[in-house]
Amino acid sequence: MSKEIGITVKKNEDFSEWYTQVVLKSELIDYASAKGFIVLRPHGYAIWEKIKDYIDRRIKETGHRNAYFPALIPESLLKKEGEHFQGFIPEVFWVTQAGDRKIGDKLALRPTSETIAYDSYSKWIRSWRDLPLLLNFWNSVMRAEIKSTKPFIRTSEFLWQEGHTAHETQEEAEKEVRSILEMYRQLIEEELAIPVITGFKSDKEKFVGAVYTTTLEGMMPDGMALQMGTSHNLGQNFSRPFEIRFIGREKQEQFVWQASWGVSWRLIGAVIMVHGDDKGLILPPRVTPIHVVIVPIHYKTEDIEPVVGKVKDLAGRLKQAGLTVHIDDRDQYTPGWKFHDWELKGIPLRIEVGPRDVSGGGAMFVRRDTGEKVFIKDGEAVEKASGLLEDIQRSLFERAKEMQKRYTFTTENYEEFKKRIKEEGGFVRTSFCLKRECEDKIKEETGADIRVIPFKDEEIFGRCIYCGEEAKKVVYFAKSY
Amino acid sequence: MSKEIGITVKKNEDFSEWYTQVVLKSELIDYASAKGFIVLRPHGYAIWEKIKDYIDRRIKETGHRNAYFPALIPESLLKKEGEHFQGFIPEVFWVTQAGDRKIGDKLALRPTSETIAYDSYSKWIRSWRDLPLLLNFWNSVMRAEIKSTKPFIRTSEFLWQEGHTAHETQEEAEKEVRSILEMYRQLIEEELAIPVITGFKSDKEKFVGAVYTTTLEGMMPDGMALQMGTSHNLGQNFSRPFEIRFIGREKQEQFVWQASWGVSWRLIGAVIMVHGDDKGLILPPRVTPIHVVIVPIHYKTEDIEPVVGKVKDLAGRLKQAGLTVHIDDRDQYTPGWKFHDWELKGIPLRIEVGPRDVSGGGAMFVRRDTGEKVFIKDGEAVEKASGLLEDIQRSLFERAKEMQKRYTFTTENYEEFKKRIKEEGGFVRTSFCLKRECEDKIKEETGADIRVIPFKDEEIFGRCIYCGEEAKKVVYFAKSY
Repeated sequence: MSKEIGITVKKNEDFSEWYTQVVLKSELIDYASAKGFIVLRPHGYAIWEKIKDYIDRRIKETGHRNAYFPALIPESLLKKEGEHFQGFIPEVFWVTQAGDRKIGDKLALRPTSETIAYDSYSKWIRSWRDLPLLLNFWNSVMRAEIKSTKPFIRTSEFLWQEGHTAHETQEEAEKEVRSILEMYRQLIEEELAIPVITGFKSDKEKFVGAVYTTTLEGMMPDGMALQMGTSHNLGQNFSRPFEIRFIGREKQEQFVWQASWGVSWRLIGAVIMVHGDDKGLILPPRVTPIHVVIVPIHYKTEDIEPVVGKVKDLAGRLKQAGLTVHIDDRDQYTPGWKFHDWELKGIPLRIEVGPRDVSGGGAMFVRRDTGEKVFIKDGEAVEKASGLLEDIQRSLFERAKEMQKRYTFTTENYEEFKKRIKEEGGFVRTSFCLKRECEDKIKEETGADIRVIPFKDEEIFGRCIYCGEEAKKVVYFAKSY
Repeated sequence: MSKEIGITVKKNEDFSEWYTQVVLKSELIDYASAKGFIVLRPHGYAIWEKIKDYIDRRIKETGHRNAYFPALIPESLLKKEGEHFQGFIPEVFWVTQAGDRKIGDKLALRPTSETIAYDSYSKWIRSWRDLPLLLNFWNSVMRAEIKSTKPFIRTSEFLWQEGHTAHETQEEAEKEVRSILEMYRQLIEEELAIPVITGFKSDKEKFVGAVYTTTLEGMMPDGMALQMGTSHNLGQNFSRPFEIRFIGREKQEQFVWQASWGVSWRLIGAVIMVHGDDKGLILPPRVTPIHVVIVPIHYKTEDIEPVVGKVKDLAGRLKQAGLTVHIDDRDQYTPGWKFHDWELKGIPLRIEVGPRDVSGGGAMFVRRDTGEKVFIKDGEAVEKASGLLEDIQRSLFERAKEMQKRYTFTTENYEEFKKRIKEEGGFVRTSFCLKRECEDKIKEETGADIRVIPFKDEEIFGRCIYCGEEAKKVVYFAKSY
């Protein structure tokens, strides 16, 4: 593979340039003509489909249904919940013209769908019989980014899902918030192989309009935290301005209790950062569009038939075992070029089949994560392939867990805190008073903010790291994307 | 069921009002706050998912892959193919503002993605090795509708898929155009149970920028034709302005040959119109989100256990046979209310289970299409349910075929043509010269246009119906949505 096709920088030397090269050269995305926008190419879309299918299945199992709301929201509607509107207003794209006609009430491109959805909810919900209303939307949202953009992590349009539920009681809404967050945790830890810390956002960092926000925070290899998903308890903050009322079981009229929650294609960005290496992407087996790529190797005409025959047989058996298999039989490329190409694209397992493998009754299995090569006898191919994939899934998670651990530092000393954030990054775990002034000061002085106040009731081990007053919680600070 | 919940007009008395009531009351859609936009509710979305899954599976089997392109297209890009731009310009929504900042090169909300996609294609395609490029996008497009809107049929935003392919040769591109149209035909006739006539659009009616457009035309119960989907041969009309060049096998540089194709949620509109009746929707078994709804009937406490037990057992066996089953165990509604509710929503098969069915060793099966009730013995339940569903699928298609036939009239006489179009509507099949002037005149005088020039090489049976000169083709005229 020529230098310009492969990755030309090392991950641990120039992380940002490495990331850019990986997303472009592995053909996950391309830049679009409008600034801040990207094109999701087929390889990237196929990973998104894996994530989507997982969430779609899980939420349908728990009674949620999909719906579609318009991409355009009248300004008057967006303004109904004041705090929410103020939060989004700086980044809203406005449609002011249709053809050559001016539009009266200008239309916002949805930055999120709370307002347009809840306008409908207020019409649909009349009685406790209509509850819970458990809906989810697969769409894209648009937020004009002022900060510098980064594919998957921060772009002016992104693909995501947004769940919006309405409940009879506060307790039910809170249960929804937590059970969705747990589903996200399983997706991220078990499928994407990325460990997260779950907990609450501080009041400063919560979703505009929410009572509270729960979050999943991941740690990236450059010491920056990444918010992987959020699940919000909206209480009655939206149901009151939108007048989503229902007649309860005891005939009294009341406002519904609500939750909203979402994850986006940002998860793909996390997979790239956490697992990738100097050769390119490494995809966890549970979210890769292709589990196994088989590369036939034949230089002489008489080798073609036996090699191709064996490849087809092997592919057939692997497919029967439920694996997704791709045979790379492009004759315009050399085997070496193909090896590099599939390494760049992150396919977890490669099988090489040449004439010697035919006569030897086996094939060469190559792991993407470690580069380890093992000759596997034909009779064991299916079992070994499945075993190796499970092992890759497990060891990617363990490696990421190690990294997260290395990047978690506990201190009661603010000087140490500042030094750590400045020199190494990562999570700094500390005791904190939860006062907004201390949070603002720390942000100002270090660039770090509270990423998460963990659910796990960790024992408070000191006084507030900033003001020295009584601490209320153990919290994790970090700089973040 | 109270009058206001059920449909209050008859399909054959006020078709338009009937349609509006069905889409709203069966909870397929609701109107959105912005004029011309609709909300696709869960029941409607579930039907769209059936259509989507079918197409997604079929196109992936034939090597197509999904991708996502931005919703916003810079004006400069949209202008590159002049004819195309002129065609779409009156209905483009323009974004001119982000937050409170004016945007320099204003951004169009995609009315279709040719321009933005082909801008990328020109970067991705370098050699014949990169061809064919077979991509599809699932998204929504926005076209500000000036005419009066109608849910699913004409709205300012709609969900669809758009396929965009690039090929080495003209022949390959033409093959793609036809094989996609055939896939659409199978979807519409075999899954949606709606017969179509396939063929070419006239030059006047083809897609702006295409060399030619192929189409599938359906006939609705009010005598109006509905275009169900299109597949375009773009030739090199876009590859030239967008400079999508490749080095061929013989090293010569050339422009790619292209096809584009799409169907939208309009197909759901066709299902409603063609199959529905005075009670509401009738969903063809192959695209219904629920095949069978089971309604347990128990008025006395001692009946609950045996009835519920039987319902669960029956549901379990039907699910095992691959059917989607819903048990309506809502205790706040009467059985009668539930029957009407599921009839309104179009579920093809209902099973009623009461105490007498428990003792009688069977259950009552009710067909949605005919209303026919049959008592089925427990041992035959699975087989009969599957058989009835197949029969419903078949008979819906036959009924629609009958209707299409009734609405197809052949004539060589322009007076008869005019009378037919005016009084009864439907397709008028006639011989035609293919001249634009005649087509324009007929449109002006009757409101009908050429819906399709059929592939089936029907024998020309007269001279041009308008000018009396030599006829070139048999064509189908109709008024249309």
